[in-house]
Amino acid sequence: MNLQDYEKIKAKSLILFDKANIILTEEEKKDLEVADFGLNKIEDTGLQLITYVNTDLVCAKELALLPYQTCPEHKHPKRDFDDGKEETFRCRYGTVYLYVEGEETKNRRMNPPQGDEEYYTAFNEIILQPGEQYTIYPNTLHWFKSGSEGAVVSEFSTRSTDDSDLFTDPRIKRILELK
Amino acid sequence: MNLQDYEKIKAKSLILFDKANIILTEEEKKDLEVADFGLNKIEDTGLQLITYVNTDLVCAKELALLPYQTCPEHKHPKRDFDDGKEETFRCRYGTVYLYVEGEETKNRRMNPPQGDEEYYTAFNEIILQPGEQYTIYPNTLHWFKSGSEGAVVSEFSTRSTDDSDLFTDPRIKRILELK
Ligand SMILES: [Zn+2]
Ligand SMILES: [Zn+2]
Repeated sequence: MNLQDYEKIKAKSLILFDKANIILTEEEKKDLEVADFGLNKIEDTGLQLITYVNTDLVCAKELALLPYQTCPEHKHPKRDFDDGKEETFRCRYGTVYLYVEGEETKNRRMNPPQGDEEYYTAFNEIILQPGEQYTIYPNTLHWFKSGSEGAVVSEFSTRSTDDSDLFTDPRIKRILELK
Repeated sequence: MNLQDYEKIKAKSLILFDKANIILTEEEKKDLEVADFGLNKIEDTGLQLITYVNTDLVCAKELALLPYQTCPEHKHPKRDFDDGKEETFRCRYGTVYLYVEGEETKNRRMNPPQGDEEYYTAFNEIILQPGEQYTIYPNTLHWFKSGSEGAVVSEFSTRSTDDSDLFTDPRIKRILELK
């Protein structure tokens, strides 16, 4: 991703946080993270994050999803120090379509990003409206996508170590490379 | 606390959450917890809480403080399963005056509840405005109080086990007894 695209996505994300009435410090806004997962189609597959805190034990983040943007399928495997990251997602704005391992939901509302269907296997649908939340325990495949308004999601979790996440799509690189 | 007082405090707290633009489910509103710490002067010493999630590892709560209400001094000691609860407080609305162990702040802004001064020993002042936060590691004495508008605070922490909290004031009972 080039710097101009980064700034554009960042601006759109800050509008979403504002719609969700999330108050951020100037430093948090400046440090907003844009994850394009190395797929180079950020508005389609990507995620914007602000990390409030990430200690050895607890992490809290605020996530923004652009309209119909997908955070791609992954799981959090066992780490040296625990059984894997545990995450609770609480929707604050918009609608979040969360898909986890388990029985496939009939007539589900969202599809994986076009062309990437082969890298998506979890189709048990959980729909989160503002105020609703769901907890994902370690080692459970999941992905999520927002509806037409985009979405803002609070994440409460154990320690975050992005480089230990396992993505179904082998092309994915979690760490942003600014070109 | 009698049921009528409980309902009154609950209504005031829901107004604060609304001012902070926190969206809650009907069930969360119904289950709002009012802690009077057994001191029977809730508007002076007390805390209102909504627990979003509390697993073995991670807890997230939304706290409401009425104007000038104090959450009394306590610490989180070692537990069977960890070194004690770790808490991050993030201010969402109003102003929070947080006091922790350490050098006493000169000309600090708030005092302990009148008549209870002997049960307060931590006077290192941290002032949190919306968007600002502070992390309290285990076994550190702390108390906090809101300013004139009241306050709403997000708490991100390790597992919450209220009965293991150690209050400086020996009269305090953490579990609410509805009369
Ligand atoms: Zn995840
Ligand atoms: Zn505490």
